[in-house]
Amino acid sequence: MIRYSAIGAVGYVCGEVLRMMVAHPEGQLVNVLDSFGVGQKICEHHPALRGFYDQEIMDLTDENVRETARNSDVVLVQVPSGQVAHLAEIILAEGSRVIDIGADIRFRDVKVWEQWYNDKHPNPQMTYEAVYSMPEMNRELAKGKKLIANPGCYPTASTLGLQPMLKTGHIVENTIVIDAKSGYTGAGRRPATNKLLTEAENNFCAYALGGSHRHTPEIEQNIAYITGKDLMKPETWQHINFQPHLIPSIRGIEVTIYATCDKDFTNEEVYELYQSFYKDEPFVKVFPASQPVQTKWAYGSNFVEMTPTFDRRTHRLIVSSVIDNIGKGAAGQAIQNMNLIMGLPETTGLMMPPMFP
Amino acid sequence: MIRYSAIGAVGYVCGEVLRMMVAHPEGQLVNVLDSFGVGQKICEHHPALRGFYDQEIMDLTDENVRETARNSDVVLVQVPSGQVAHLAEIILAEGSRVIDIGADIRFRDVKVWEQWYNDKHPNPQMTYEAVYSMPEMNRELAKGKKLIANPGCYPTASTLGLQPMLKTGHIVENTIVIDAKSGYTGAGRRPATNKLLTEAENNFCAYALGGSHRHTPEIEQNIAYITGKDLMKPETWQHINFQPHLIPSIRGIEVTIYATCDKDFTNEEVYELYQSFYKDEPFVKVFPASQPVQTKWAYGSNFVEMTPTFDRRTHRLIVSSVIDNIGKGAAGQAIQNMNLIMGLPETTGLMMPPMFP
Amino acid sequence: MIRYSAIGAVGYVCGEVLRMMVAHPEGQLVNVLDSFGVGQKICEHHPALRGFYDQEIMDLTDENVRETARNSDVVLVQVPSGQVAHLAEIILAEGSRVIDIGADIRFRDVKVWEQWYNDKHPNPQMTYEAVYSMPEMNRELAKGKKLIANPGCYPTASTLGLQPMLKTGHIVENTIVIDAKSGYTGAGRRPATNKLLTEAENNFCAYALGGSHRHTPEIEQNIAYITGKDLMKPETWQHINFQPHLIPSIRGIEVTIYATCDKDFTNEEVYELYQSFYKDEPFVKVFPASQPVQTKWAYGSNFVEMTPTFDRRTHRLIVSSVIDNIGKGAAGQAIQNMNLIMGLPETTGLMMPPMFP
Amino acid sequence: MIRYSAIGAVGYVCGEVLRMMVAHPEGQLVNVLDSFGVGQKICEHHPALRGFYDQEIMDLTDENVRETARNSDVVLVQVPSGQVAHLAEIILAEGSRVIDIGADIRFRDVKVWEQWYNDKHPNPQMTYEAVYSMPEMNRELAKGKKLIANPGCYPTASTLGLQPMLKTGHIVENTIVIDAKSGYTGAGRRPATNKLLTEAENNFCAYALGGSHRHTPEIEQNIAYITGKDLMKPETWQHINFQPHLIPSIRGIEVTIYATCDKDFTNEEVYELYQSFYKDEPFVKVFPASQPVQTKWAYGSNFVEMTPTFDRRTHRLIVSSVIDNIGKGAAGQAIQNMNLIMGLPETTGLMMPPMFP
Repeated sequence: MIRYSAIGAVGYVCGEVLRMMVAHPEGQLVNVLDSFGVGQKICEHHPALRGFYDQEIMDLTDENVRETARNSDVVLVQVPSGQVAHLAEIILAEGSRVIDIGADIRFRDVKVWEQWYNDKHPNPQMTYEAVYSMPEMNRELAKGKKLIANPGCYPTASTLGLQPMLKTGHIVENTIVIDAKSGYTGAGRRPATNKLLTEAENNFCAYALGGSHRHTPEIEQNIAYITGKDLMKPETWQHINFQPHLIPSIRGIEVTIYATCDKDFTNEEVYELYQSFYKDEPFVKVFPASQPVQTKWAYGSNFVEMTPTFDRRTHRLIVSSVIDNIGKGAAGQAIQNMNLIMGLPETTGLMMPPMFP
Repeated sequence: MIRYSAIGAVGYVCGEVLRMMVAHPEGQLVNVLDSFGVGQKICEHHPALRGFYDQEIMDLTDENVRETARNSDVVLVQVPSGQVAHLAEIILAEGSRVIDIGADIRFRDVKVWEQWYNDKHPNPQMTYEAVYSMPEMNRELAKGKKLIANPGCYPTASTLGLQPMLKTGHIVENTIVIDAKSGYTGAGRRPATNKLLTEAENNFCAYALGGSHRHTPEIEQNIAYITGKDLMKPETWQHINFQPHLIPSIRGIEVTIYATCDKDFTNEEVYELYQSFYKDEPFVKVFPASQPVQTKWAYGSNFVEMTPTFDRRTHRLIVSSVIDNIGKGAAGQAIQNMNLIMGLPETTGLMMPPMFP
Repeated sequence: MIRYSAIGAVGYVCGEVLRMMVAHPEGQLVNVLDSFGVGQKICEHHPALRGFYDQEIMDLTDENVRETARNSDVVLVQVPSGQVAHLAEIILAEGSRVIDIGADIRFRDVKVWEQWYNDKHPNPQMTYEAVYSMPEMNRELAKGKKLIANPGCYPTASTLGLQPMLKTGHIVENTIVIDAKSGYTGAGRRPATNKLLTEAENNFCAYALGGSHRHTPEIEQNIAYITGKDLMKPETWQHINFQPHLIPSIRGIEVTIYATCDKDFTNEEVYELYQSFYKDEPFVKVFPASQPVQTKWAYGSNFVEMTPTFDRRTHRLIVSSVIDNIGKGAAGQAIQNMNLIMGLPETTGLMMPPMFP
Repeated sequence: MIRYSAIGAVGYVCGEVLRMMVAHPEGQLVNVLDSFGVGQKICEHHPALRGFYDQEIMDLTDENVRETARNSDVVLVQVPSGQVAHLAEIILAEGSRVIDIGADIRFRDVKVWEQWYNDKHPNPQMTYEAVYSMPEMNRELAKGKKLIANPGCYPTASTLGLQPMLKTGHIVENTIVIDAKSGYTGAGRRPATNKLLTEAENNFCAYALGGSHRHTPEIEQNIAYITGKDLMKPETWQHINFQPHLIPSIRGIEVTIYATCDKDFTNEEVYELYQSFYKDEPFVKVFPASQPVQTKWAYGSNFVEMTPTFDRRTHRLIVSSVIDNIGKGAAGQAIQNMNLIMGLPETTGLMMPPMFP
């Protein structure tokens, strides 16, 4: 039995963790903490969970965090940028484990974080000690560790869509362009005019135009990792364009990846390459060029699905890769990481089919 | 008064032409013809037009086309690929004019059409004589002409988003990638499982993956035209990637254009460049990097709206450009072309605001 | 030329008034006033209006209202409940006219307002002097008047759907049930969690359950008016159930009206009755039982469309009636009333087709 | 272990049964049969099931049905109206069990079916022997039986929303009106123009206007059962109005029930009444008037959720009741019935939270 707690209670990711954990045979929720909604039942904020969880939201005080850590094997943390270090110190001091769903400890070189988040990191040492764990990329690193950085949603779909071809060494440097699209759960639950159904439905738009989205360096770090570059020397990494958009949809990320190659492939060859690379991965599904993946094929699940193709006219690899942004893109991967660090099979509780239609 | 007729009655484009023409002070509908729905009132197929048009759909016979042409100044044609030449011959023989909304006569070199449409062109001579008319690119060519190829929806948003920078000569050859997204009206009105609300809502996917979409060579031809290449020598054109996707939305196209430049710009510089280039265009609106355009800003209108930006890390121009696919992308531009060849101000009947929200 | 101004600038109704007025040959916007967004361009809040209006939002001070009234033939007012009286006094004192889009002056007996709005009315005398004007019900009353209460959205669809049968006298008292559904523009533009696309899409729910919605007495007053009851004696009015719901849609109201009759009709008879009753109404369309109306048939327009039917098993009239809630349900009807009190044909600027699809 | 098979493979209900059964610890799929898609993998039609089921669709021949029945404890059947009797004869003859998801055997008096379906029933005797099983209404009847009629979607939401008050005897005869709304999965998967996203999104409409929907007599039969009327004498049943509508949504049914009572209640009293009535039902959740239920609270689940209220002005009970139309409204209830007749706890495999958002 894994005793787990969650810090950050009212957002979509916590709701999804709790929903998914209902199917997990080993999970037992201890506490949920937040500085918002204190004293209310967790299911008042997540109406689908009525009858499944009875916990009240505990105030996010150091004392409550300490006590929670004492009674929990793992604490999943989702808090605003810059606030994880302090909480993680308390939790680790009690001998418990941290899975951070935010970006605070995702970068090996803390300067990358400081540059893109335009802030001073509160605990550089912690960021060096944390393990960034995307199991399909580097699952060996996390086993038995206590401080885990859970990958971002866009970086997950992007990295796994690039990985097999990156490994061949045929991608030409600095030619990678990632055009990403996300449903509105990716924009959080805080009310804003542009997220109202009236403004968002029947609408589509880019945001963070021109290369300014903070998931860019996370993807670049993953590319550096896969291609064997030094993670402590970001100046050696190749640069990519990562450009996000909003889909008038609740869930779902699709990224279309373009990368020039120094060798031509057929569609069948890239399909074989990817299929073979991921053949033992329980959460990755690869499709041939005739079957472009759809975000709804992964709805509510921990699956990553992708269709790799190749355009010989332009010598470009073109991969379409989809996930559920709050499934594999957040809650699902956090549970997968929880299984990993607790020594359970990674698939425990996660082999549930997506919801269609 | 312009007497106009439409061949192809029951699709979304004809409905949009008729809707837009209600605001046109000079238009008078003569006939609508189709081989589907013959004898039914046009408004049975376009419920929003009840009370505005009373015409019945005439059978698409040669005789009816001839008689229609005799009584019409212009005939807008939207028929399946390969069928325009025969109809256009009849219409032109009667001294009337043709605006073809399909792709049959869009390519100066008929071999391009034959290659991408995998068919033998029924009348190569006609394709050489036709004028491809995107007014914001080449409005001088169409004036007074009688056989007009109306541009495709994706090519319109893409070409106009590229044009100002292409004209500077700073785009590096073969670096252009266009990631395009369209609402489902772009997929036509014929029922299919994947277009049902149940399957399409909350879904997002690529299609024609790997460089196979037929709008690719149309955009390449426009790039060749703008950069002064020989339109009769497609082997000299640069190659692009054009990759379309489906948005769970009724209307709207967004294209995100990526192009490496041999000179760096700031966001402000590209904004100034674009703003200045289009300052006299009544249907083009340019926005600064802080305001990414939204498809709904152009909903139901003939406007093209775009936000050009530049990423100095990667030396890439990144432009987001939006239109309404059945507005400026089809019906609106057809009316604009009708105004153009009939000698009316281009804006006649088209200066209507988009619908928001 | 009608010089008009609008108080209440940033909401959907003002945006729709301005959008519709582009097609109005006689309208000239003088000022827009609000206490929100002061100094900003009106089109910053209504992106579809860029290029059509250049006005800045004036602060909603008494002095600005006075000056605006001096230069305007009509002022359209949409402000929070209870605030109209003060503004109307200023405007009327300058000899201008008021069309109030809210509910402050809709009730002949001020006690009805006070009871349902749980407030003391600031100016009972004004409410007695105002004219509630739904042209298809009582257009003679408004002509030449200066203080107009524009009907509510739900009451418009409901009243016009009931009127022909009410006039026959065959509806049994206290048997009327109205099940109403509205798109989210009806819930306003202020951000709230339940109105986010993520929570509203793919969702449907009732609100104001159990008979508590404030549009109930407005419909009851209209029924009393149509059946010749004394509007000053609400105790003599019949009671109805009016139950609203939210559709995961941007625009559109559908009401399904149930009323027991003391005489049986066929579907054909009720169709004839309604068709004949509304045959001279330019904005009303009646359909036979085989064609249930759809909200999208009225999208963005001033039309009311309805399908009356009769169930002889239960002796009930069943009418489905649709409008665009911010079209005929607010902005369109306000313009229709503006035409009416200014002596223009009611249809001026409003005979534009709905947008479909 | 329950060995089960499904006849009718490619529709949404079969997909949902298979999806839900992944969480069922005792279920083992034997065969899927259909006359459509024969030889294709089941997961080609249900993309979310890839990796979960490997069966190919068997042709729907008598021989295949017989062999399937021999190897199955239960066969779930969903076929066009009129076709169940023949299949059920084969299945029962092999000693297996039938759960029919259609309407062929739902009526105790076969004349009701013949009148509303305008057809001669192929096997009246079978309809008399079948058990109509809605567990929350009559679970004792089904235990150990072999021929089960699974209730319709609308009747489930309607009946369970009426039941507690019907049992009190306070509902006045012939005053019940049910205004029902369903997502488009309720309209099936067969392509049709009106179900396309382009036509259905942002749209809302009634259908089967005027009392003609076939779920009407099923609800009337349930009311008769609950109030102790003779099910073999439909002439003694009270008449209701049941009026369905389409929500621009994938899943979800909401019904709003109106019924005049001969005694007045407060909102609190009806809440207590309902809460108490259903307190031991694992799949029913009752909410107070301040919390109108939302279709999304039941998304993808077997739950029924309802908010009962009372309007003392009109003496009417008003209940809003929601289900997932393909969850509790079809697949979920079929699994619940399968558990029931196989002697498992009803909740086996079904206590999974809805998906939100």
